[in-house]
Amino acid sequence: MTQKKLGWRMRDVLQRAVGAEAFSDAEADRLLYSYDAASGRALPDAVVRARDVAQISALMQAATRHGIPVTPRGGGSGMTGGAIPVAGGVVLVMAGMNRILSVDTDNLVARVEPGVVTADFHAAVEQRGLFYPPDPASSAFCTLGGNLAECAGGPRAVKYGVTRDYVLGLEAVLPTGEIIHTGVQTAKGVVGYDLTRLIVGSEGTLAVITAMTLRLLPLPESVRTLTVVFDTMDRAAATVSEIIRRGLIPRTIEYMDQAAIRCAETRMPGELPVDAGAMLIIEVDGRAAETTAMAEDVAALCRGMGAREVRVAASPEEAKRLWAARKAISPALFRYGPHKINEDIVVPRSRIPDVVEKIRELREKTRLMMVSFGHAGDGNIHFNIMLDKNDPSALRRANWAVEALFRYTLEIGGTLSGEHGVGLSKQPYIDMEIGPDEKALMLRLKKAFDPAGILNPHKIF
Amino acid sequence: MTQKKLGWRMRDVLQRAVGAEAFSDAEADRLLYSYDAASGRALPDAVVRARDVAQISALMQAATRHGIPVTPRGGGSGMTGGAIPVAGGVVLVMAGMNRILSVDTDNLVARVEPGVVTADFHAAVEQRGLFYPPDPASSAFCTLGGNLAECAGGPRAVKYGVTRDYVLGLEAVLPTGEIIHTGVQTAKGVVGYDLTRLIVGSEGTLAVITAMTLRLLPLPESVRTLTVVFDTMDRAAATVSEIIRRGLIPRTIEYMDQAAIRCAETRMPGELPVDAGAMLIIEVDGRAAETTAMAEDVAALCRGMGAREVRVAASPEEAKRLWAARKAISPALFRYGPHKINEDIVVPRSRIPDVVEKIRELREKTRLMMVSFGHAGDGNIHFNIMLDKNDPSALRRANWAVEALFRYTLEIGGTLSGEHGVGLSKQPYIDMEIGPDEKALMLRLKKAFDPAGILNPHKIF
Repeated sequence: MTQKKLGWRMRDVLQRAVGAEAFSDAEADRLLYSYDAASGRALPDAVVRARDVAQISALMQAATRHGIPVTPRGGGSGMTGGAIPVAGGVVLVMAGMNRILSVDTDNLVARVEPGVVTADFHAAVEQRGLFYPPDPASSAFCTLGGNLAECAGGPRAVKYGVTRDYVLGLEAVLPTGEIIHTGVQTAKGVVGYDLTRLIVGSEGTLAVITAMTLRLLPLPESVRTLTVVFDTMDRAAATVSEIIRRGLIPRTIEYMDQAAIRCAETRMPGELPVDAGAMLIIEVDGRAAETTAMAEDVAALCRGMGAREVRVAASPEEAKRLWAARKAISPALFRYGPHKINEDIVVPRSRIPDVVEKIRELREKTRLMMVSFGHAGDGNIHFNIMLDKNDPSALRRANWAVEALFRYTLEIGGTLSGEHGVGLSKQPYIDMEIGPDEKALMLRLKKAFDPAGILNPHKIF
Repeated sequence: MTQKKLGWRMRDVLQRAVGAEAFSDAEADRLLYSYDAASGRALPDAVVRARDVAQISALMQAATRHGIPVTPRGGGSGMTGGAIPVAGGVVLVMAGMNRILSVDTDNLVARVEPGVVTADFHAAVEQRGLFYPPDPASSAFCTLGGNLAECAGGPRAVKYGVTRDYVLGLEAVLPTGEIIHTGVQTAKGVVGYDLTRLIVGSEGTLAVITAMTLRLLPLPESVRTLTVVFDTMDRAAATVSEIIRRGLIPRTIEYMDQAAIRCAETRMPGELPVDAGAMLIIEVDGRAAETTAMAEDVAALCRGMGAREVRVAASPEEAKRLWAARKAISPALFRYGPHKINEDIVVPRSRIPDVVEKIRELREKTRLMMVSFGHAGDGNIHFNIMLDKNDPSALRRANWAVEALFRYTLEIGGTLSGEHGVGLSKQPYIDMEIGPDEKALMLRLKKAFDPAGILNPHKIF
């Protein structure tokens, strides 16, 4: 942890670049921005509150000239430490750049600043009859800038895809200070290299996003939310595979194992089946007639696969409470242990039953508390180990289990992260997935953007 | 045009790298691969027929070592000269690598080689109840590798997006010979930089694609095809904007002006309204109930907007003939003149009426034959000028009109290409859209992939 105070000379350089009122190296500010939702922390030397693109350009020029690390930060809700300033330097707090610049209902396009909270954006566009599908569990406090940096997903990706699929263009500042404009404001565009999608998902290591043009959809006319209860996780997993195999594409197929249901139940006391082996939340949407027909098909299929209970939410309010409970699982997990190891592997959807079996095997071998839930419709599994990291034996067994699960995931054609990114916490494993030639190429791209290596250093690689 | 024959030393190097049977510098082969669907041609020094990834790796190593240009080629149907070997060297013919390696109906994923003809792939997956939406007009002879290189679109992009949205992962050979694997085989994946989407749309300048993992959808249960006839182009354009504004998203909204209708009519004699000002082809799909309801809504809206006639295709065969006629417009245009200048601008969908007005103004000013048609639902307009390029006055007026249209397109928030790319033919205009800092960054990326500058040189920039 960097404890040193910034020298007066660098302090002066930075204050001049960003404006004195945007700069702080007070202990309280440095502590506040030393951590995110991953474990680990590191004190920055200073905090800069982003105001506008010109200020960020000035900051980046100074940072490259003087070799000062800059770590941009959205809501700080990232799961892999992307916002932790491990190299010290400056944390660039984007929260203040939070204007929705325009919502164009004629062209289904919005232009926003990166500090807009995702849920606020959802509310703003839905009020106009429009729809922005990406919906990470942290939507109440994460920001769109962070969503783009990590290529966030969420439950609706089964039908609607992930953040990448909704970004048309960007304004961004390069680590060397140039302000660039990428992509288009239109439905299509293929002029030049796709800088937009290269920056999306680059975990804040290639450029600082200062504005974005997002694609919207019309708000679906109707939504039905089904909860489907199974005695065993195996049956639930087999049902998910069967739904996809039959060509039914609901917008959402979430699953929870028993431990996850119990976490969710703390937000809906008495309303969730805490004795069940697993539960699915399936959501279908579209025009009213389609939604009804599809909900019936899905329900019939689930019953045929051995579901103990299929229930359609009686009202939008009931569905809303169900989602609040689902989103509360991750924080509620700490009832099972003081520390969490939290991974988000993705496997081909037909292999979910195999992963469920593998997790059972790992649980038996390690005798650790494991909880799994997530976006089953995408094969995207949030796998959690709850433990006391001060117990060296437990930590050793946990690390062994994670590595074993990762190895198995790659063996069956999966990937180590569906939406959390690599950041710091998956770095020890990245070479399992990315080969040396691919990694060397990625590092050359990093250099093409960031010759001095000052933007969010030591992340991903 | 490079006329020189390859020296015996380079001939030997290449033959050793790729195998004698894959190599040719016969005049006939060199002529055959000197052109594509754009105007212009250039003789390569040799032709190599791609066999497998190892052979391509050997070729690229030799090419980088000896500074030999390599231009990969799919179906040769590109509209901007991407496959023309302007620097001479080798044309790498990918057509022979045309196996569909797997179609996974459980996971809605296919793995294919780049030489597969797009229509063959459509047929193969549709036979299994699956659907690959990208559908460029040249689908009967273009290849998937070319589609990826250009990020092809087509009529169904309104609802389903473009090629980029269906590519999960790639095997590719770098210009320096390394074989890389990018992306995932799963629904989600965010580990490392997005090399997949950087290579897609890079017009064969960053890497040679040797295999691809494509995302599929379930084949929609039903499709309805509507033809909607208007007295004036203005009314048709206003109707397109209104459909989108109302939140109706058909899978397709194509339009044709009168000259385009007359071209299409040559394939359906007596069946198309050659006296109409404009015609839309609107296609809706989904579950049967949804399709019927949506077709009715769209028809009512079109009538309300002043359509002279709304007709639902009576059978899938009638719809098929209609699409064959639509796809025949581009080649049929030569009835209007010996040469074609052909652009594919995109504008915000609400601005289509303004572009229609602009085109009328340009037609009046230049007194040239102009035909426009295209993917109105995306704001993607195929604008054609038919002329005799040997008439210097006509050519001057045509170039003036293109530049005026491009300027207007950018002014109203559009882009110079929705699916054809830049290649050679739009190069004179790229600086109108891509700023100097963005271009410098793109050139640094090119260098990170291709330090010797041997892969498809002189394209895009």
